[in-house]
Amino acid sequence: MKAEILSIGTELLLGHIVNTNASFLSERLAGLGIDVYYQATVGDNPLRLTKAVKEALKRSDIVIATGGLGPTVDDVTIETLAKFAGKKLVLNKVVLGDLKAYFRMKHVPFPEETTRQAYIPKGIKWIRNMVGTAPGLIFEINGKVIIILPGPPREMEPMFDKDIAPYLKRRFRLSSSLLSRTVKITGLAESQINRIVMDLLEMEPPTTVGIYAKLGQVELKIMSKYADERRARREIKRIEAIIHSRLGPFIFGYDDETLESTVGKLLRSKEKTISIAESCTGGLISHRLTNVSGSSAYFIAGLIAYSNRIKSDVLKVSRESLNRFGAVSPQVAEQMADGMRKLAGTDTSLAVTGIAGPSGGTKSKPVGLVYAAFSSKSKTIVREDRFKGSREEIKHQASQAALNLIRQNI
Amino acid sequence: MKAEILSIGTELLLGHIVNTNASFLSERLAGLGIDVYYQATVGDNPLRLTKAVKEALKRSDIVIATGGLGPTVDDVTIETLAKFAGKKLVLNKVVLGDLKAYFRMKHVPFPEETTRQAYIPKGIKWIRNMVGTAPGLIFEINGKVIIILPGPPREMEPMFDKDIAPYLKRRFRLSSSLLSRTVKITGLAESQINRIVMDLLEMEPPTTVGIYAKLGQVELKIMSKYADERRARREIKRIEAIIHSRLGPFIFGYDDETLESTVGKLLRSKEKTISIAESCTGGLISHRLTNVSGSSAYFIAGLIAYSNRIKSDVLKVSRESLNRFGAVSPQVAEQMADGMRKLAGTDTSLAVTGIAGPSGGTKSKPVGLVYAAFSSKSKTIVREDRFKGSREEIKHQASQAALNLIRQNI
Repeated sequence: MKAEILSIGTELLLGHIVNTNASFLSERLAGLGIDVYYQATVGDNPLRLTKAVKEALKRSDIVIATGGLGPTVDDVTIETLAKFAGKKLVLNKVVLGDLKAYFRMKHVPFPEETTRQAYIPKGIKWIRNMVGTAPGLIFEINGKVIIILPGPPREMEPMFDKDIAPYLKRRFRLSSSLLSRTVKITGLAESQINRIVMDLLEMEPPTTVGIYAKLGQVELKIMSKYADERRARREIKRIEAIIHSRLGPFIFGYDDETLESTVGKLLRSKEKTISIAESCTGGLISHRLTNVSGSSAYFIAGLIAYSNRIKSDVLKVSRESLNRFGAVSPQVAEQMADGMRKLAGTDTSLAVTGIAGPSGGTKSKPVGLVYAAFSSKSKTIVREDRFKGSREEIKHQASQAALNLIRQNI
Repeated sequence: MKAEILSIGTELLLGHIVNTNASFLSERLAGLGIDVYYQATVGDNPLRLTKAVKEALKRSDIVIATGGLGPTVDDVTIETLAKFAGKKLVLNKVVLGDLKAYFRMKHVPFPEETTRQAYIPKGIKWIRNMVGTAPGLIFEINGKVIIILPGPPREMEPMFDKDIAPYLKRRFRLSSSLLSRTVKITGLAESQINRIVMDLLEMEPPTTVGIYAKLGQVELKIMSKYADERRARREIKRIEAIIHSRLGPFIFGYDDETLESTVGKLLRSKEKTISIAESCTGGLISHRLTNVSGSSAYFIAGLIAYSNRIKSDVLKVSRESLNRFGAVSPQVAEQMADGMRKLAGTDTSLAVTGIAGPSGGTKSKPVGLVYAAFSSKSKTIVREDRFKGSREEIKHQASQAALNLIRQNI
């Protein structure tokens, strides 16, 4: 079973927006065991759109098109596809009712031009849009399928998961499916991990392992494709165990887990509270921790102590240490962590001080030098890192190392 | 002049990464006055890659391909294109020297497989990679041009700006160029702005205006394309003045400016310092402010007062107000802002308290209810907002409204 993704929109060709639909749909289709060999993007132009659909149907069984379903005359996807399939557009009363209900709910008067979105090719299956206005459409032409979905990801994504994926499974009696498991690692460079799991990266289908380096973390993705789902699951478990045996201490999570969600889970299960004192990361560590729903159970307070005065007045870092060792030093990191823990009355705390750049670096204390300290009643632990990159990249890497320090010591 | 973008990489077809190269290149090409009518993505497969290049050359004068230039046998772009162009691969000593220097600089032993990246099609123009290893290549075939660039954006983007854009200008004697100006707005909904500038959105080329809604901000992009660059510049100025006359107070910046960089500029020019007290935004406002290089000149401190105890102990919010009005109330927002200003000894301060959700909402205080307060010696101002969306979306919108409150009152 082969599918092709067709993204429609002049704004894509002008580079005004990044196409996240193509990657979302590709990943979902791979998960269904459907191969994607091509993605294409065309503008809101009937001629070029028709040509692109023809080309795609030559190569693939399924074409999934997104975009160009808006209410304005620039949006030509439905008209063009209806003409291509030889179908007439007719006003669909149910869709019109949906549209009117949508605007009532929003307390906005119904814009007349929206009526255009209720014209559906005759006899065509349509899918209700639970988030926005444009419905999805499914054309079947000579045993091939063209699926048309709205362009905005927040409308398209739930529509695919709720309606299109089940439809494809039924329609093409999909049995073989691609299962995957992502192992997330921090604290080791990609090249180091490469060496450690080289044999796994060289595996051939049906089970393969890919390596993906992101800023401050590396992901190993195990994929397995068997007609028998249990077999795929078993194979993934087996490879996961091998990876765990070699990289265990560096693995912080799986699949959708993040370093902050893992740290949150640990704090919750050990019934510990935490507070954060930040200098160069400027609030990013607290921001990440509080992105986790329910974090108020363990996250009590954060302080961004950007100036030395705040470090000494509020966190009680000794002025002598600030003068003698400087604000970016292991001594100050330690005192910030201890001071924060006392200020917030928490079981544990973490502090970070460093130079995010691009200015402010010296020969002995270059941009990217970061100290992180973890403090609990029984111990205080400091680590030193030297990161490279832009200001935001250094902030992100420092937050990553800091969260990992909590994970290791909690 | 027509160009086409060809993204190469099986990881794109599996949806493992989002394709930002296509939008980057499309935008840059539009800026050079080169039209892009198609973008395509294929895997690291010689057969399908050759076919895609042939198709692209039929339609366009310029094909820009990215990806598949790595050192492993999976990377087939150069071999495939060399074969297509009838060129032999030969070891290029200069490129090999570059590669060796790159690893010396990184203090990493030279990996033998990297030698593969020094094999360049005979007689082909190559471009030095200033960030990574794979050089760029320029093929000229029958008056058409195929440009091959490395896949990683941090290598590709500077290479395009430094070498490819000047090459294209020279090679195709480009004179007409598309100029653009982005006007950034916050505090009004897209539908409201739509109504206010409807006439501008309906303009036809050579000068057009597009509207792009993002979370918590809306952007109007003015584009103008004339052979005479001064004329385009004049037209953009004229439209910009119209937009400014209608939406002035809601405009926070232009082009690359962000709300946090604008707030930073204002604080700097008025020589004011600021401190931030956050509850539901959890550090995001401080994080955004400190993303601006040089922010330590005006940003003194931030406090994330997640628990009521911290609000009363550290920020001196009265326990009575917390009990009577609740932590999410205009009274507490005000006291947080005043308390923060005194704690940090700053000229101004901002405080935010609200319910980021998804849990914690009540009938009278639903998820998304956020109070922001701005405090200076002469005044304290509070605003109430009700946002919709996920936890992270509510945090982002609240940070946007808070930064805008600073901008309006500083």
